Amino acid sequence: MKASESGEFGLIEILRRMVAERGEIAPDLILGIGDDAAAWQVGESVQLGSTDMLVAGIHFNMDMISWHDLGWKALAVNISDIAAMGGMPEYAMISLGLPADAEVERVTELYQGMTEIARQFGVRIIGGDTVEAPVLTVSPVVIGRTEKGRLMTRSGAEPGDLIAVTGNLGTSAAGLRMLRGKMQFDPETETLLRKAHLKPLPRVDEGRLLSRGGVKAAIDISDGLIADLTHVCRASRVGASLSAENIPIHPTVRDCFPNESLSLAISGGEDYELLFTAPKEIIESIKQQLADPITIIGEIVPEDPGEVKILDEGQNLITPKKGGWEHFGDRL
Amino acid sequence: MKASESGEFGLIEILRRMVAERGEIAPDLILGIGDDAAAWQVGESVQLGSTDMLVAGIHFNMDMISWHDLGWKALAVNISDIAAMGGMPEYAMISLGLPADAEVERVTELYQGMTEIARQFGVRIIGGDTVEAPVLTVSPVVIGRTEKGRLMTRSGAEPGDLIAVTGNLGTSAAGLRMLRGKMQFDPETETLLRKAHLKPLPRVDEGRLLSRGGVKAAIDISDGLIADLTHVCRASRVGASLSAENIPIHPTVRDCFPNESLSLAISGGEDYELLFTAPKEIIESIKQQLADPITIIGEIVPEDPGEVKILDEGQNLITPKKGGWEHFGDRL
Repeated sequence: MKASESGEFGLIEILRRMVAERGEIAPDLILGIGDDAAAWQVGESVQLGSTDMLVAGIHFNMDMISWHDLGWKALAVNISDIAAMGGMPEYAMISLGLPADAEVERVTELYQGMTEIARQFGVRIIGGDTVEAPVLTVSPVVIGRTEKGRLMTRSGAEPGDLIAVTGNLGTSAAGLRMLRGKMQFDPETETLLRKAHLKPLPRVDEGRLLSRGGVKAAIDISDGLIADLTHVCRASRVGASLSAENIPIHPTVRDCFPNESLSLAISGGEDYELLFTAPKEIIESIKQQLADPITIIGEIVPEDPGEVKILDEGQNLITPKKGGWEHFGDRL
Repeated sequence: MKASESGEFGLIEILRRMVAERGEIAPDLILGIGDDAAAWQVGESVQLGSTDMLVAGIHFNMDMISWHDLGWKALAVNISDIAAMGGMPEYAMISLGLPADAEVERVTELYQGMTEIARQFGVRIIGGDTVEAPVLTVSPVVIGRTEKGRLMTRSGAEPGDLIAVTGNLGTSAAGLRMLRGKMQFDPETETLLRKAHLKPLPRVDEGRLLSRGGVKAAIDISDGLIADLTHVCRASRVGASLSAENIPIHPTVRDCFPNESLSLAISGGEDYELLFTAPKEIIESIKQQLADPITIIGEIVPEDPGEVKILDEGQNLITPKKGGWEHFGDRL
């Protein structure tokens, strides 16, 4: 079987099983393969580690993103993984594969994008590797920290929990659609959609607040609302029921893509908002502490573990056209 | 200027300066860019992080290395960086870029090589990322741990220190030469040289012993003895004087490559032995605790900081043909 047929998640599952079979006892390991970040204990502290590799032609296209924004985004997606666990990002190591004809000036712009987001989120770049590669490849690691008992995981959802999401959804996928189709909107809209896709803002403060407020299950929306909620449902062995009308589709997405706005919001991905589940009173208490919106969009149910159902206003089942994307199956 | 003209070390220096200019205060950061691994403090413990990216066609050639051995080597080089700081490797995260036509069976072999060395060195694989890429790209991160005050660094060498090295040198470069040239030797020799190049053994126990014994400056030999000693001299602002006749060239390298054995041992690289400096009495004490050889090969001097001189038996200066290699300048 080819890697392209097994899908990204298929390969990760193979590795997870091999590691589980062969692993030694690691008393300080809290979370291994299968969550947004790995977690291990050091004294009274919990260290978090996340790594996402971005490859030109697969995850980004240099016709659509500047080197500066690519540097930003490569760190942003990893900072977002730390945020989804409730952690503070602290350090980054950057492995960079560069074509031999890459201009040093462009590489400097890439570093500027990385140092810009690093400074904004209090992250120090402390190491890495720079090598030659056939296409531009950025492989950052972000190390973060949280406290014992404060970790939010994919496996912490329980029947009866409500499902909520920070912010509004769909702008990143709408931005990608705009950039690919060279679509034109008014300047303000174009800036909003472009920034949503190219310079996402990880929800670090929100993740800290959720974890301090008692939320036990969270994930960042990278693959898409449905796909990421499915990850949570599988890891927690629960089902989920979503109310389509309550999904916070960004108003600009509704305006610009009226016929596809729900699909962009639930399947588009890369919004880097936090999706989480908790008892109602915890969510209500957190809502009062946050300026940005938190929207309750459904509930965790014991039936059909691993499955996400979407209901319309009349409580009828909706079938999404596309359940997020995997890198091996669907090129960006 | 092209990245290929600036060299790998040129780009790393650019990044180091940008990060230094823009960095926030990070009170727990012990070592950032420029050593074998980054180091940061967590409570009473020091965490270490190393990442080296390996790209097909640049760092390895699938005609010469099996997927299994590549998995081993990709982790070995990062474990070696932790060993060079005196640390215990504990966790690994593996980012993998795979061509779409890669066979899942081959990828499983790669993971087997990684889990094999991980188990041998007590390392747990705790996460990573698997994505599509035009060529096979392996980007592991290894996280390790040591104690406060036990860190060995590139900047710890002082005038008067002797320079020493673990084991024997040159077998990895000799192995590469054999594999590239399809040279034939007796089976035992071929196995030794092949394993030295493809399945190097990081010196973790030796690194722990050196650091406990009071050694303050160490590096692993990845770029080559001269190149790596030059890194130490630059970071420590000292010079070095090596005695060519004392360099522990592996006997097999002397036998198989009689005219080039010194060059293979001092410029070949990838031996993953530890090169370190310390006062004579510390080295003598450590020698008595180790079964494997430790050889004193020179001394640290205050003159000509950043420079490494090699002297022959008559104390005449020898000029090496090649001072190690950089990935952008010299393809393997």
